[in-house]
Amino acid sequence: MTDSTTTVSEVAARAAAAARPFAATSPADRGAALVAVADALDAHAGELITIAMRETGLTEARLTGELKRTSWQLRLFADTIVDGAYLDARIDDADAAYVIGPRPDVRRVLEPVGPVLNFAASNFPFAFSVAGGDSAAALAAGCPVVVKAHSGHPELSRRTAAIVAEALEGAGMPAGVFQLIEGQQNGVALLQDERIRAGAFTGSTHVGRMLADIAAARQRPIPFYGELGSVNPVYATYADAELLQGFVASVAGSAGQLCTKPGFLFVPDDADLSAVAPAAGGVAEHRLLNPGIGRAFEGRRSAVLGAEGATVLAEGEIREDESGQRHATPTVVAVGLDTLRAHREELLEESFGPLSVIVRYADAEELPAVHEELFPGNLTSTVHARADELADGSLDALVDALAATSGRVLFGGWPTGVAVTPAMQHGGPYPATTTDATSVGTAGIGRFLRGVAYQNAPQELLPAPLRDDNPWHVPQTRSAAGRSTEWGAFAR
Amino acid sequence: MTDSTTTVSEVAARAAAAARPFAATSPADRGAALVAVADALDAHAGELITIAMRETGLTEARLTGELKRTSWQLRLFADTIVDGAYLDARIDDADAAYVIGPRPDVRRVLEPVGPVLNFAASNFPFAFSVAGGDSAAALAAGCPVVVKAHSGHPELSRRTAAIVAEALEGAGMPAGVFQLIEGQQNGVALLQDERIRAGAFTGSTHVGRMLADIAAARQRPIPFYGELGSVNPVYATYADAELLQGFVASVAGSAGQLCTKPGFLFVPDDADLSAVAPAAGGVAEHRLLNPGIGRAFEGRRSAVLGAEGATVLAEGEIREDESGQRHATPTVVAVGLDTLRAHREELLEESFGPLSVIVRYADAEELPAVHEELFPGNLTSTVHARADELADGSLDALVDALAATSGRVLFGGWPTGVAVTPAMQHGGPYPATTTDATSVGTAGIGRFLRGVAYQNAPQELLPAPLRDDNPWHVPQTRSAAGRSTEWGAFAR
Repeated sequence: MTDSTTTVSEVAARAAAAARPFAATSPADRGAALVAVADALDAHAGELITIAMRETGLTEARLTGELKRTSWQLRLFADTIVDGAYLDARIDDADAAYVIGPRPDVRRVLEPVGPVLNFAASNFPFAFSVAGGDSAAALAAGCPVVVKAHSGHPELSRRTAAIVAEALEGAGMPAGVFQLIEGQQNGVALLQDERIRAGAFTGSTHVGRMLADIAAARQRPIPFYGELGSVNPVYATYADAELLQGFVASVAGSAGQLCTKPGFLFVPDDADLSAVAPAAGGVAEHRLLNPGIGRAFEGRRSAVLGAEGATVLAEGEIREDESGQRHATPTVVAVGLDTLRAHREELLEESFGPLSVIVRYADAEELPAVHEELFPGNLTSTVHARADELADGSLDALVDALAATSGRVLFGGWPTGVAVTPAMQHGGPYPATTTDATSVGTAGIGRFLRGVAYQNAPQELLPAPLRDDNPWHVPQTRSAAGRSTEWGAFAR
Repeated sequence: MTDSTTTVSEVAARAAAAARPFAATSPADRGAALVAVADALDAHAGELITIAMRETGLTEARLTGELKRTSWQLRLFADTIVDGAYLDARIDDADAAYVIGPRPDVRRVLEPVGPVLNFAASNFPFAFSVAGGDSAAALAAGCPVVVKAHSGHPELSRRTAAIVAEALEGAGMPAGVFQLIEGQQNGVALLQDERIRAGAFTGSTHVGRMLADIAAARQRPIPFYGELGSVNPVYATYADAELLQGFVASVAGSAGQLCTKPGFLFVPDDADLSAVAPAAGGVAEHRLLNPGIGRAFEGRRSAVLGAEGATVLAEGEIREDESGQRHATPTVVAVGLDTLRAHREELLEESFGPLSVIVRYADAEELPAVHEELFPGNLTSTVHARADELADGSLDALVDALAATSGRVLFGGWPTGVAVTPAMQHGGPYPATTTDATSVGTAGIGRFLRGVAYQNAPQELLPAPLRDDNPWHVPQTRSAAGRSTEWGAFAR
């Protein structure tokens, strides 16, 4: 909250009051405001990164890159809205001779859904937090935003929110378009408030599902865009030292606290895995984000190491310091497919931290069925294969299975590292996300828009993107009168 | 089911088996199949309309128009997909100099979500039933469809399903892309089956919410697109005889059994309403769709007529025939705003049948607040005003309130009659629909699609719309390497 005496209801009222004036701003003005926010974040980089290092244990290099990504995605959303194509403006001219009877003038545009409540993540204190992708997308769409701060970086959240709100106000946006609240109870209370019209979340499957259920159980349910759990399986037809080193680096980066960390690597059962231990041994100890995540990782690590039939390739270490924070080095185990199936509970669940499981397989033709059985919903799936194997069709069934169950399918490389671009998809079948929608990249703006049609409206009462004089110069898709007689016959 | 021995699980298995081959069909081939279905329905019009008249009590003229609309919307969806623009194909070229670090080649396309379960409506035995808008949209998207038949027109459902399935098979579509089931228990069981990936529904708020809750409570929740309840308020600044006659005609059409029937007409408190009774008295008795709807309407009518303070303008009649069907003429009452507020339970709920409430208001400036208080979610809202009132800005606040709470805002005319066009929006804030998505018009295809990204994929493993040689000739939005240096600076 802006201060400790503000109630959740006052926050909702302020967001609701801002909704219509904010919706009425032009894409150009809203885009300029997003750029102003990006500039302000960049200008305060030193201060923000210092707080973030202390609160999260992430490195300066990682946080510097993450803040750059955060301000960049605000600029990218500004670029996305400025031409107005995202509004999908459609104009059907009145047509007295329309095939199924005279039709009126109907015009449709995408309008903001209203106030959005974003639950910030622990592991990206910039890019998936206060000024992160969900906030950028909702603001770009024209929705007032309330962020529920993550308890793991409270000071950073408050400072970032102050910078964002000031920049938006300085750019002429209405008061109340950006607010911060703290505390899980306040978050839940606001999610249940009728004035909140959509929710977004990045975090654990357990908490995300709880919030999604609350959103669905409201008297008037609202869409809830949760990015929950993903184990990001990788299927390799070979495993040389270079591949295994890349795998360990991807598992170890940011101490494995990434939603796209490869949790499983499938390799042929005769693969030489001797490169894993030295690669893992070369990774420096890394603090985990907070004591809760540290404890949870310690528990998951013990379960995986204790699974009967698992071979420990790199045991790694975990230690608790005097302040209760845990520090870890990577753990990697190897199992056969039978062991994985026999110990699903210990092995299949996501381990949020530097841990991964290598699975030996005997028959590559089994992999599509294995994947669909064990991994029904993921953010990413990856194939590592030689060019001739990709070309000869032998992997087609596997690729089909991955595409049917994942938001992003990679050929080579590692899933950690999510490009912020127009074509990115960061969302897949449950539990990767609650709705298949993307929370990274410009396509995510669609989550916060809804269609509204205007029938026989006088020009002066139409929203700007639907007017004949088109003051914002947006693309308008026009269905001219008489066209219906040409339609529907293409296939005859 | 195809026959009485087929189980729900077998239906799901057949739909799931059809999903990938169907998804792989080209838009041109799928479009041709939709046109083949349209042709087959048109060819069987006489037979189908005869069954529909007997099962629903709707008139030949109405059913003839509705079947034409149904085949037309199949053709319109064929036209919508054939150019591939709906796929939203995006290609980000690899860019070593991308602002936030080197980026890979990423390509994203919209793919079908998988098998869809559609619950047919009672009141449109063609256009919102077996071969209706939800089926057309899902088939156009490339999703196998299972329709749960409405019990109100079982023979028509079976006959229509046989014609649709045969036409699809004749057009070369995979077996299992279209199936019919019957019985509410089977519908619920299938909605809970993991192989069903989305649900759609048109019907009552009570049943729709029950199904939406089931979809949300699955181990893996799925999107559920329900079109539930709407009372479609109309705000008039005047009420002359012509307006009142148009109102009664809109209330009485198809015996008021339309989701866009105007349930409330607001008029100035000095309006002369003497034209209502003769207009209502001139409407011939019309059978209600089935005994259940007849009973429910009888109950709602009694409640409305019994509300203290309601003035009966046209009492209408309702009678039960020897077969248990009810026949009705229009009922119209008038109330003041105070009465409406005091008797919300009796008056505000949707009355599915030929009944409407005229509300007298004293102060037009109150209307925006009244609307938001009483009507938070509707398919449509309508304004009837003189040109000078629309031009002088006095209605701006009301129009804003209507747009914030409705899928479609009309200026003049009546909400019954929903054009099937690219710009139509038939969906609004809850309870109008469960998700704000449209179930009429070509924008509805988006409900059955999800984004999938391919990273560094070899050309031969990319879906056709993402390949450089673009074999389907679809529009591809390309983000070229180097462009990032131009972006994000427009507002400086």
